[in-house]
Amino acid sequence: MALLNSIVNGEEASAISTQDRGFNYGDGLFETFLLLNGHAVFWDEHYQRLVNGCGALGIASPTEQRLKNDIDILYQLNPNVRTAVIKLMVTRGDSERGYHAEDNLSPNIITSISTYPSYLTEYWNEGVLVKKCNTLLSSQIQLAGLKHLNRLEQVLARQEWRDEFQEGLMSDVNGNIVEGVMSNIFIVKNETMSTPLIKNAGVNGVMRNIVLKLCEANGIMVVEDNLSNNKLVEADEIFLTNSIIGIWPVKRLENKSYPNKLTTKIMKLLVEKYSVDYATLYL
Amino acid sequence: MALLNSIVNGEEASAISTQDRGFNYGDGLFETFLLLNGHAVFWDEHYQRLVNGCGALGIASPTEQRLKNDIDILYQLNPNVRTAVIKLMVTRGDSERGYHAEDNLSPNIITSISTYPSYLTEYWNEGVLVKKCNTLLSSQIQLAGLKHLNRLEQVLARQEWRDEFQEGLMSDVNGNIVEGVMSNIFIVKNETMSTPLIKNAGVNGVMRNIVLKLCEANGIMVVEDNLSNNKLVEADEIFLTNSIIGIWPVKRLENKSYPNKLTTKIMKLLVEKYSVDYATLYL
Repeated sequence: MALLNSIVNGEEASAISTQDRGFNYGDGLFETFLLLNGHAVFWDEHYQRLVNGCGALGIASPTEQRLKNDIDILYQLNPNVRTAVIKLMVTRGDSERGYHAEDNLSPNIITSISTYPSYLTEYWNEGVLVKKCNTLLSSQIQLAGLKHLNRLEQVLARQEWRDEFQEGLMSDVNGNIVEGVMSNIFIVKNETMSTPLIKNAGVNGVMRNIVLKLCEANGIMVVEDNLSNNKLVEADEIFLTNSIIGIWPVKRLENKSYPNKLTTKIMKLLVEKYSVDYATLYL
Repeated sequence: MALLNSIVNGEEASAISTQDRGFNYGDGLFETFLLLNGHAVFWDEHYQRLVNGCGALGIASPTEQRLKNDIDILYQLNPNVRTAVIKLMVTRGDSERGYHAEDNLSPNIITSISTYPSYLTEYWNEGVLVKKCNTLLSSQIQLAGLKHLNRLEQVLARQEWRDEFQEGLMSDVNGNIVEGVMSNIFIVKNETMSTPLIKNAGVNGVMRNIVLKLCEANGIMVVEDNLSNNKLVEADEIFLTNSIIGIWPVKRLENKSYPNKLTTKIMKLLVEKYSVDYATLYL
């Protein structure tokens, strides 16, 4: 996950103003996605979520061309890196001290390219070890779904383990599972897939939506519903989604093993095929 | 509120790394307080809250001397500014992409001095106009009380008005008032003062605690309890506290006026006297 290069407001740089509102208040949004042979995977979906988030927070959205220019520069700086991770950050801009933001602020746009994380191949093939976190996700209907910069709950949850697990699941105050620290979650039970509703908490994950759309387009039943701990434990299969990993099967959740992975593996192949096709078509 | 100078990790500077975890995740804390003729007002209380917050988030606390050095430098740079505002920020430090933080991170310490805000004298004497915000405060028992950097709820709430009010009140999901966007709240009713419990949401305000301690030390009854909208509307007096303003009486809340201000005014005089004595004794 080593940082290779970063761009701040169009110039290669590695620092931002201490008056940036992202820094002071988390007043901004981010997107993280794969750059595969120079192609931004599921770019349309990431850009659209960013635009939606900017609208929700009242931040001026950067144009698509503006961001694509940065991505092209980051790729040109690293033409031999086959698979990399791009992170885009958009904040409301710099302002004086205080929560009040002037109307005419110019958003700060920070883009960076990092190496692909050193995940083991077995995470995709055999599955991952998952923990249930004690840190809860608070409910905030205005912020739910957005990939905003207020991420202390994820930081606290990630502190609950070191490398003995690959992911941790987070619940809301009602005890329903919402998502993983860095992923969304699906379960398979009796021929039906389901994933928690992202309504009061959680991130509206791009890979989650890709899975939902692929199923919908092909007549595969998926339900968005509350995911109780009981449903989770009794699932036939569990899998995790995010834009960097695609799909990881869950091998073990706390002490319970999930040997069934057939649906998950086929879904994973489908998403990968779709990702590569999509990346090849892009640009 | 214009920024005068800032210091980043001991050097006068106005930029931080784009890899700072405060910037990426809001993974840090801050304190804001008065610098009165070079004296940090209620310094012990601010430093102690910062240390407590660092403990809660697992961030290494900066030493008191380390921060005092910064404050001295900021004052030396502006020796003729009688009343200024100091902001201290402590983040977990820089790290690679991802929620996981290595154990050995070196916290980033950012301090700055700004001019005192241009508040009208009548805000202290006649009181302020206050709105009830629609933006709710989410409940998060691990983060409640801390002055952490995840402040999007305050940013959204502050967007609900321009300059037609001086403060907005925020409620939790149960409809109880927790605090103002930038202040804590007290009400006076039938010879008793009360302020909302800071247990599931809200900031453990230094000025709030000063008021509580002053009352306790002098046998004045103050209750920490849920503050329903009914209690609020039926209060004899309402006042707001924070470290920069001290105490502001509330003149009008939405459409209801609060002409009684006697208790508030005497409490305000007491806190101001105590603040100045304290500042004079310090250093």
